[in-house]
Formats: sequence, structure tokens, C-alpha cells
Amino acid sequence: MPVFTDYLWFNTKKRQEFVRITDQIAAIVKASKIAEGTVLVSAMHITSGVYVIDWEDGLIHDFQVWLEKLAPAGLDYKHHQTGEDNADAHLKRTIMGHQVVVPITAGKLDLGTWQRVFYAEFDGQRSKRVIVKVMGE
Amino acid sequence: MPVFTDYLWFNTKKRQEFVRITDQIAAIVKASKIAEGTVLVSAMHITSGVYVIDWEDGLIHDFQVWLEKLAPAGLDYKHHQTGEDNADAHLKRTIMGHQVVVPITAGKLDLGTWQRVFYAEFDGQRSKRVIVKVMGE
Amino acid sequence: MPVFTDYLWFNTKKRQEFVRITDQIAAIVKASKIAEGTVLVSAMHITSGVYVIDWEDGLIHDFQVWLEKLAPAGLDYKHHQTGEDNADAHLKRTIMGHQVVVPITAGKLDLGTWQRVFYAEFDGQRSKRVIVKVMGE
Repeated sequence: MPVFTDYLWFNTKKRQEFVRITDQIAAIVKASKIAEGTVLVSAMHITSGVYVIDWEDGLIHDFQVWLEKLAPAGLDYKHHQTGEDNADAHLKRTIMGHQVVVPITAGKLDLGTWQRVFYAEFDGQRSKRVIVKVMGE
Repeated sequence: MPVFTDYLWFNTKKRQEFVRITDQIAAIVKASKIAEGTVLVSAMHITSGVYVIDWEDGLIHDFQVWLEKLAPAGLDYKHHQTGEDNADAHLKRTIMGHQVVVPITAGKLDLGTWQRVFYAEFDGQRSKRVIVKVMGE
Repeated sequence: MPVFTDYLWFNTKKRQEFVRITDQIAAIVKASKIAEGTVLVSAMHITSGVYVIDWEDGLIHDFQVWLEKLAPAGLDYKHHQTGEDNADAHLKRTIMGHQVVVPITAGKLDLGTWQRVFYAEFDGQRSKRVIVKVMGE
């Protein structure tokens, strides 16, 4: 079974930023020449996520407001006693998930009409990485 | 490596409905003749999820109450300025997850005693789809 | 395509406990002799999860406080009318997720610097199981 691996790099301007990556994933799948299988897209950090949602700016805003409500920054987290200040980033990323498996059918990402893959950065402004592993035949 | 793909269709009567799909997944795995591997079960919409939980009606009720508390309908979401009214469905589905990977051992779904696969609809009353992709040997 | 399956067993002393399992997963991958692929690590119970986070005790504490806030024990859950008392364990585990897919590259778990795999027990003090399924080449 062929297995094909690549990595995506990010360095967002803002601390929190959601980045569309469907086209990059599709390009890696095309390069892999795998026509039937799956592609794992998985953040390699514990303060960023990967998820599937609509490409709509209002909705992205709604997610950010919602995550701040469920997992607020600035609380007195124990993790911060180590010198860190990003406990909320870990919590937010847990809600969003840190990986997706996208099916590949007939050489293409088999996504629904409105499904797009996003990288969710919660502690950016530095170099971060996502692994993309294609498996199939 | 064999790869076998099928789709499940849903058109729920209610806007929000949780549907048991373990038997349909098991039937697709049987048809695939794959004895060792995994099956990806993934919603193709951004307002529905797939998850694994107990088959118990009280618990399903508890999940619905809980999701309404964490991600309420009827708030003034930005997404609704596009004419949509389902932002809460996107949030609820994010908590539940939109896909699971079920292991296959000796030709059967290798689930724990109480584990059942569910389709979670948060914006139903129309045609929706789940992809089922079996991989292995 | 080789597929290799193993199981991890747990019996935690406390009802809620987070257990580091990266080394056990790495040992199973080594035994599988699969050099390129993925390993599915999936809880076989509906009151335990598997997730990836930092190995830092303060952060583990923060997660436990946070989960108790989002999914409190002791509420009047419908599920408890069946004689159960663990509805909150189901909700907490849903937030954390019950499975991860870890990429394998060059014979090793391809994790980021701070990524560690954890088993999250929310209803312990009895025998529980996680399936570990390695696939690749």
C-alpha cells in the first residue's frame, strides 16, 4: 500500500487565526497519485487544530466568540505557573479537534458541497506544522 | 490494499435527531470482505455529526439538553446575516465530532460492549449523506 | 497491507484519571514492524477518551476543572433513571474525544515536540480497554 507524507507550515500574523487549507491538501493528494483511500491531516502542536467547516466569514467569527465563552483566556490556570500563558489555547483546540481524516475517491477529496478543511491557530506568531499523510491505492 | 466505499442517506423528520447506524456500517464492512482494517464513517455536511455512544434514550435526551446549553439556538449569530439560521447546528456538531474511525478485527466491527455508532442530525428535514470508507486487507 | 492489532488494559485507582500511554503505543508500533502508516488508538468504552496533549501536571488539572464546569457531575440526568450515575462521564469524554490517529513515519510516531498520547478515564476503578490498530507498510 502506498503511503505518502508531506507537511504544511504556518506562521500566522495574529495569535488566533483560522486558515483555509483544502487546496493544499488536494494538491498533496494529487502528488501522491493515490486514487482511493484517506488522508490524515493532523496538527503537530497542542495549541492548534484542524477541522472541517463552511468557508463563511460570519461563521468563523461566531466560532471565535463561542470558543472564548467556553474556554476563556486570562483565567488563573495552573498551567500558567510554569511560565506559559496559553492554557486557553489548549482548551479551545480540544473543542475544535486537532485532526481530520478526509476520504479520497476517484483521485479527489470526497467532501460534501460545503465542507472545507481549516487550520485553527490559537497560539500563533511562530512557526507551526501540520502533517498530511495519504494512504490507499 | 482493498478500499471499499459506500454512502448512507438520511432525511430526518425532525430538525434534530440522533439515528443509530451501527448495523448499516456492519453490513457495509461485510460487503467489503475486508477482515482486518478500519472503516471511516464521516458526515458530508457541516450540520451533522457521527459519534459513538450508548444506545439509551435517556442519555440521548441528556446530550440534547447539554448541547442546547453549550451551543444555544436563537442567538444573534453573524452567520445568520447571510440568510442562514443554523449557526448553532455547526457548533453542536463540532462538540459531537463529524467522524469516527471504527476498527475491524476478524471481519467484524471491533467495538466495546456498549459502543454504538450514531448519526447526529442538527439541521434535518432534507437529504443528507455520510461516507463510509473501508480500508484494510 | 499489514495490519497489526493490540489492546491496552486499564484499571485506575481513582474514578477520574489521565494516564500517559505514548510509550505503550510506540512499543506496539515497533512490534508491528510497520514503518509508514498510521496507528488508531481508540477507547472501547463510552466513559473514557483518548487524546493528545502536553505532559504537564498543571494543565491536566486545568482540563479536569474545565470539564467539570462544562459537564458537571451530580445533575439530574435522565440517564440516571436507568440506575446509572455516570452521565457526566459520557459528556466529558465527548469533549475530549475517544480516539486519535497517530501518524507513523520512518518507523516512529510522528508527533510534535510536545505531543503526548493520553488515556482519559472518567468512570474508572474497573477493567477498561483501548484498541491499538496499526496499518501501513
